[in-house]
Amino acid sequence: MKYLHTMVRVSDLDASIDFYCNKLGLEELRRVDVEAGRFTLVFLAAPGDKEAQVELTYNWDPQEYDSGRNFGHLAYRVDDIYALCQKLMDAGVTINRPPRDGHMAFVRSPDGISIELLQAGDALPPQEPWSSMPNTGTW
Amino acid sequence: MKYLHTMVRVSDLDASIDFYCNKLGLEELRRVDVEAGRFTLVFLAAPGDKEAQVELTYNWDPQEYDSGRNFGHLAYRVDDIYALCQKLMDAGVTINRPPRDGHMAFVRSPDGISIELLQAGDALPPQEPWSSMPNTGTW
Repeated sequence: MKYLHTMVRVSDLDASIDFYCNKLGLEELRRVDVEAGRFTLVFLAAPGDKEAQVELTYNWDPQEYDSGRNFGHLAYRVDDIYALCQKLMDAGVTINRPPRDGHMAFVRSPDGISIELLQAGDALPPQEPWSSMPNTGTW
Repeated sequence: MKYLHTMVRVSDLDASIDFYCNKLGLEELRRVDVEAGRFTLVFLAAPGDKEAQVELTYNWDPQEYDSGRNFGHLAYRVDDIYALCQKLMDAGVTINRPPRDGHMAFVRSPDGISIELLQAGDALPPQEPWSSMPNTGTW
């Protein structure tokens, strides 16, 4: 038995690829357009960690997707939580839970999927602007 | 960057451990009781695949968790999809999408988290009772 992926539905494929790949840093591994079912599947993973994937399901007919509380988040370990949060913030992503402790941050995908970022190894020393940045919304 | 886990909230920890471990076959790796926050975290993974985990969050104060459409499912590759579906069915789990094709099945956790099971390697030859079993509900 082996974990393959977590599937999330996305309402705007371009915006989602921009978020998950360009901003967050995942890589696109594989894309399947299913004409008969009018949907596209895109498989993503962190660079060098291709065994644990995220599957984006994009239905070609417009849909909006709500969030539920039974799903919590996807969590990734990152090399430099400050650098990644800065990159995300510069790209217009709200840092819902800033890494005030140098250890943990939360952001959300365009469809409201919560993403936890955890600093690899020991927490980084507290650093502005993160130390004094308040929470925004929920995650 | 590395995938760590998908977190799901559970309203009944015993029922969830029974589903994810006793029935589905994941293993409990680690459990953390956080008295101050009145919650318990339990980390699970498929045997031999400890790098890709599921984190159960159990809040001690009763809560019910709804489902949203932005989250799709967790997917696992399994060695014998018929044997696992039989074990799940015998244990009272509804097989929402039976493995009619010997390849894919869906079930749900007690809190409605959809779980996709995918047969390792080639699909198995069609076999009753699965071949003629209808879908139940959604997944």
